[in-house]
Parts: sequence; structure tokens; C-alpha cells
Amino acid sequence: MTAEQIDDVVGYMNEVGRRARVAARAMARAGTGQKNRALIAIADLLDRQRDAIASANRQDMDAGAAKGLDAALLDRLELTPARIDSMIEGLRQVAALPDPIGAITDLDYRPSGIQVGRMRVPLGVVGIIYESRPNVTADAAALCLKSGNATVLRGGSEAFASNQAIADCIQQGLVEAGLPAEGVQVVATTDRAAVGAMITMPECIDVIIPRGGKGLIERISRDARVPVIKHLDGICHVYIDAHADLDKAFAIALNAKTQRYGTCNTMETLLVDAPVADVILPRLAAAYAEKGVELRGCVRTRDLIPDAIPATEADWDTEYLAPILSIRVVDGLDEAMDHIARHSSAHTESIVTEDYSHARRFLREVDSSSVMVNASTRFADGFEYGLGAEIGISTDKFHARGPVGLEGLTSLKFVVLGNGEIRV
Amino acid sequence: MTAEQIDDVVGYMNEVGRRARVAARAMARAGTGQKNRALIAIADLLDRQRDAIASANRQDMDAGAAKGLDAALLDRLELTPARIDSMIEGLRQVAALPDPIGAITDLDYRPSGIQVGRMRVPLGVVGIIYESRPNVTADAAALCLKSGNATVLRGGSEAFASNQAIADCIQQGLVEAGLPAEGVQVVATTDRAAVGAMITMPECIDVIIPRGGKGLIERISRDARVPVIKHLDGICHVYIDAHADLDKAFAIALNAKTQRYGTCNTMETLLVDAPVADVILPRLAAAYAEKGVELRGCVRTRDLIPDAIPATEADWDTEYLAPILSIRVVDGLDEAMDHIARHSSAHTESIVTEDYSHARRFLREVDSSSVMVNASTRFADGFEYGLGAEIGISTDKFHARGPVGLEGLTSLKFVVLGNGEIRV
Repeated sequence: MTAEQIDDVVGYMNEVGRRARVAARAMARAGTGQKNRALIAIADLLDRQRDAIASANRQDMDAGAAKGLDAALLDRLELTPARIDSMIEGLRQVAALPDPIGAITDLDYRPSGIQVGRMRVPLGVVGIIYESRPNVTADAAALCLKSGNATVLRGGSEAFASNQAIADCIQQGLVEAGLPAEGVQVVATTDRAAVGAMITMPECIDVIIPRGGKGLIERISRDARVPVIKHLDGICHVYIDAHADLDKAFAIALNAKTQRYGTCNTMETLLVDAPVADVILPRLAAAYAEKGVELRGCVRTRDLIPDAIPATEADWDTEYLAPILSIRVVDGLDEAMDHIARHSSAHTESIVTEDYSHARRFLREVDSSSVMVNASTRFADGFEYGLGAEIGISTDKFHARGPVGLEGLTSLKFVVLGNGEIRV
Repeated sequence: MTAEQIDDVVGYMNEVGRRARVAARAMARAGTGQKNRALIAIADLLDRQRDAIASANRQDMDAGAAKGLDAALLDRLELTPARIDSMIEGLRQVAALPDPIGAITDLDYRPSGIQVGRMRVPLGVVGIIYESRPNVTADAAALCLKSGNATVLRGGSEAFASNQAIADCIQQGLVEAGLPAEGVQVVATTDRAAVGAMITMPECIDVIIPRGGKGLIERISRDARVPVIKHLDGICHVYIDAHADLDKAFAIALNAKTQRYGTCNTMETLLVDAPVADVILPRLAAAYAEKGVELRGCVRTRDLIPDAIPATEADWDTEYLAPILSIRVVDGLDEAMDHIARHSSAHTESIVTEDYSHARRFLREVDSSSVMVNASTRFADGFEYGLGAEIGISTDKFHARGPVGLEGLTSLKFVVLGNGEIRV
């Protein structure tokens, strides 16, 4: 099916949603072995269909080049053999993860005689809206499948042929394992009205996960009538306390900024407690200079780093995603936490300190999805945290915070075991 | 302050929201002892201020009677001495509950050397929108306070004076315990625009909990730009399996319908497996007749209970909240679960069976917030489940399902403890 064949996009999306809702029941009751067989079958099919996938991708790449897409976008679009390997490997890894579904916890007896516990269950139908990377099709489908959800995937129009080729493998793999093909559907139209329909059908879709640029995510959050698990900004802070081990502080502040520049868990603002600023800042400035990081500082920072550019108020609220760092000298823990409360995007903050009470207060009082002591913000990641995989990082507070793995795609229902008890 | 003094309702609500956001930081870091002292202080103040509260309530009752409010509404509005006692007792009970905030779980070491766990944290600012019962003001404030949240309460206009009198005690109790008075704010206007403002300020309010009639809740869900924890319908089912112990089935089916008629966890539809219908239905019909319950049945039901009214398709989708019951004879577990999947409001369903595999399938496959074996649906309740208290029952899947206690007003953040680890 190609995009051009669909005239009534809203009617088509209603049909996609209805089929997903029906398939969700089968996905929810699928056993662990059956889901794993589907994941392995999809991995095998992707391996056998490498040529077809590469050829579909070439078609997208040629069309993209002809349309004048920029190099960065074309790079994200490309499915190299290594990237296909990585999709296949990802499916096998998800098959190896423990199945969260059906697990019962806290099954306690109550005075009435009933036994009450909670069972982990799928959310139902997960909608994923993403941009150019076609590997998201396989990665997201795998996590939704393992967590017992049906999935509706809507990828970027520039990756249309690639996504459809991957979708063919996924649906065939589902069927081989005895699951409904509609357990994973890739929207077969590039019409933007499909996105509008997806985010406004709570009767068919239980949660939307947008992955892409901030503009896409803001638009979707504003218009959605379905709950959204989203990630807007990563304005992450490292605070070097007066009681820090300065060697740890040096290593962490350097790593958090320079290990990768374009990631959401990269530090954007460094806060330094005044008593140690004159020791640590010149040392860090030299190391940042060597890496080519531009420094923007407050007045007190510039006293110690004369080359730093004056920071403006806007700097404290900016996610650079680039070799740029803003630095502020503060007077103690409370001023650091006030700065974070005002300017952080609630993603990840780290304190470097050897002071027990400062560490304990920072952990408790900083309201971000990840709060660290003596560790680089770059660790805020589903794999590093041991979730096994990650469908995104939530900067919201409701339902899921921080890296979202399989558990974030589930919910808990109550189960009650009785022996004929009635309420008196 | 009275309602009449506020001209710019949206500006006023923005100010309420801003103050709540500031107070939320103090509420989040308040210790267990401090929160308990506030709860006890509020209980003591309510006790000492009984006369003022009763007099404010009389003012509301007189105004309500003059406006011609119906008897049921006036009953809900009234604060009898027993109801004031019950508010006071409720505050003391919440003080006695364990504090969920700050608890760290699953603190495991990772191969990188970091230790990763999760800390339970408040959601931030909780908005409660409710109708006539003024006791909700104290009950909801207590749960939000104990879970470390700031609260904005917007009660019904007919209970305005009562709510303000209770709010005075709450704010004074907060201050006595060293917490900000703005930790709990009761909206001081009856203007409906206040509700519209509350549900569209995600920058100030993190979650909205509407309590009241279905119309209110539907309106709020439709227009909200803030996550909503809501409860729409309670269309609960009991399924009597062919392998049921029929004495248990009789007791449960009678209790689930007749113990109280107006509650959300009351059974509205009884499903009976064909092989036992001729034994159990006439016996139940006699018992229901004695209680004055009107029966509406499918064709096969009416063969066994000739007095039953024919059920229409609409009956399967109706929450009667009255002495009315719809009954359907089905052919086995799958047909019962299909009926439930189509018609249930995903609140509470119970199977009566001695068959192990049927019980296990029902528990796993029925997608409702509470799923029971051999127990009355009337047990679906925060107190019966041991949550200690309940701010509502969620029929949503996202974030919280079923009875919502303190935990539903919290979230989990990641905490990372390191020793200078950096990412390589």
C-alpha cells in the first residue's frame, strides 16, 4: 500500500485504531514464550530481508537527496548494514529481557479475608510518532510487543519506504508466532492529518510517545487528547559543592559536558560553590579550552576565567546541544538548588560533594527525573540504569519519570482472591 | 475574602497557582513528623472551631434552601456533628499512615560502579475540583499534605462558606507546624471561570482530580491540559461460572448488588454460565425480589425468570446506581469475557468459580482496574484494600488504576549514587 491510495485519512486512522484495539487483547494475553518467538522471528526476517530493506532505504535516500534534505537528516535516514545489524541485535536483546506482564506483587491478606495484590498489565495501544530514523520502527515495536501492547507507528514521511519494508517483517514475524499482524501497524500514509487523528482518539490509543524535535513534541502535547509520555528539554546541571573531592569534580564536570555534546543528558550549566571556584574553575577552563568548549559565565566566573563570554539570563534556560557551557558561581547548596529549581528542565542534576548532609538534601529536594551524587549526568540512560532498553526519557512527573523501559509501557491493576467473601 | 471581591478570576487563579508552585517545594521537603504535626493541628482546630464551621454550614444550608436545592443535595451539603467528627477522625488516621515520600527502593549496583535506585516523590501541586460535600475539603487536603503535595481545592459554590471555614483551620494548622499556609489553598471565588483556569495551567498544577457527577468529570477531561485522575462509570460485572460453588455465587451476587445501590463498585450486570443458570437464577430472583430489585434479562434469563423485564442493548451499557440489575446467560468463560470487554467501564469485575484455570485466565485477561475471584465487587475500595484512605477510584490506565491512596499522589524519580564515575 502506498500513501497515495488513501483519500479519507481520518476514516483510515479510525480503522487502524479499531484494529489495534482488537489486537491489543491478543497481545495482552500472549505468553512470554510466544512474544519472544515473535521477536526472534522478526529479527530473522530483518536479517533475511536485508536487501529489500536496503533497497527501500535507497529509494528514501534518493528521494530525500532530490528534495534537498540536509546532510544531518540524510545521515539519520540511512540504514547502513551496521544499523540493520543493530536493529536485529536490539530485537534479540528485548527477547532476552524478563517479561514484566502478569507479575503479581504485594499479595496480602486483609482482615475481611480477601487477599489483595497488584498485577502488572499492558497499557493497551501505544502510539509512537517519530521523525527520520527508520530503526525506531523496529526498536519501538519490540518494546511495545514485549510489554504486551499493540502499537501504531507513524514515522517520518522521508522514511516511508524504509518503514514499510521493516513493517512487513514485523507483521510477518507476529503471524509466524501466532499473534495478529495488527499487533503492530505502521501508518501507511504520509498525510499529516494522520498525526492529528492519532493524538485525538483516546478510545483507540492509550498513550502517545512522540520522538523527535522539540517543535514536534510541543505541537503534539498541546493538541493531544491522549496521555503523552514526552521529553522536552535536557537542561542538566552539575553542582560542585565546597566539600567536593575536586578530582572527582574535575572528571565529572568534564565528562558531563564533553563526552557527547548533542545528547539530552549532557550538562548545560555548571554551578560552582564560591569557596572552591578559584581552584577548580581555572583548571576546568583549561580542559574545556582544549576540547574547544565555549564558556559563558556570570561575573564571578569571569573574574576567574577572563576569556569567558558574559552569560545572559537566557543562557540559564538554554539547551545548547553543542560545545557551549554556561557557568555560575553560587553561595552554597541552597543557592544552587534555587538556581536548579528555576532553570532546570527537570531532567538530570548531579552534586559533587563528600558532605553527607549536602548529598542527602540534594537527593531529596531536587525535583528532577534523575538526581545524582558524584556521577556524570551522562549516566541518565535506560541501558546504564539496567532497564535493558529505553523507549525514551520522560521529563514529566505523571506515570513515568526519567528513562522509560518496559515498565513505563505498563500499569498495575488490583487483583483480589477470595473464598466467597461479601462486604458487611 | 468573599467571592464578590474578585474581578479578574484568571489573574487571581494564576496567582493561586503561582503561590501553590512556590509552596510545593516546602511541602515536598517537609519531614514526616512535621506533616503529622500539621495534620493533628488541623484536627484539633476543626474540633475547637466546630461552632464557626457549623454556623458557616448553616449559612450555606439556608442559602441552598432559599435557592430551592433538592433534598439529596442539601443532605450532601450538611455538616452534622457526626460528619465533623468524621473529618477530624480522618485527619488523625492520615497522620497515622506511613509516609510514602523519600522512600528509596531497588538501589542496585551497575557494572559502571554507580548505584541506581528510585525515590518516591510528590507530584507537586494537586488540584481537586468537587461538588457539594464540604468534608472533601479536609479529606483531600489531608491526603495531599501527607504525600508532600501542595493543593488547590475548588469546591461547589453551594458549600462556599463551609469550605472557607474549613480552609481557615487547615491554613492555621499548616502555619502552626511551620509549613506555608499556601500549601493548601481553597479557591475564594464561586466563578466557574476558576475551574477553566485550573485545568489549563500545567505550569502551576501537575494533576487534576475531579470528584462529582459524570457531567462534571466529562467536561473537565475534555478541556483539561493537565493530567486528570478520573472515574467515569462503574459498570461492574459478576460472572457465575459453571464450576462455581453456588452458595458462594448466591452470596456474592446478592451482596454485590444489594449491599448498597448507589456506589460505583456495585454490580450492574450479572453474567451466568448456561449450565448453572437454571439452578442459580430462580434462587437469586427470589432473593432480589425480596429486596425490591428490578431484573432486566436476556431471552434465556426470562425463560428462567418470567417476571424479568426484557433487557435492551442499552442495559448492558448502563450504570443504574439503583435497585435494578441486568442479567445475561452466556456460554462459557470466553463469552463472559467478551461481554465484559465490550460493555464494562473497566472498574471492577468478579468471577465466581472453583476452576483453577478459569480463575487464572479471568485474572490475567480481564482488563479492569480491579479483577476478583470469589469476592464481592463491593470490596473495590481503598480502605478494604488496605491503602488507609482513598482520594478516588481511577478507571484510567495511565499512572493510577483503581482505588487511589497516597501512592497515587506520588511519582518515582531515579537516584544515582556514585564515587566519581564518568561515562566512557
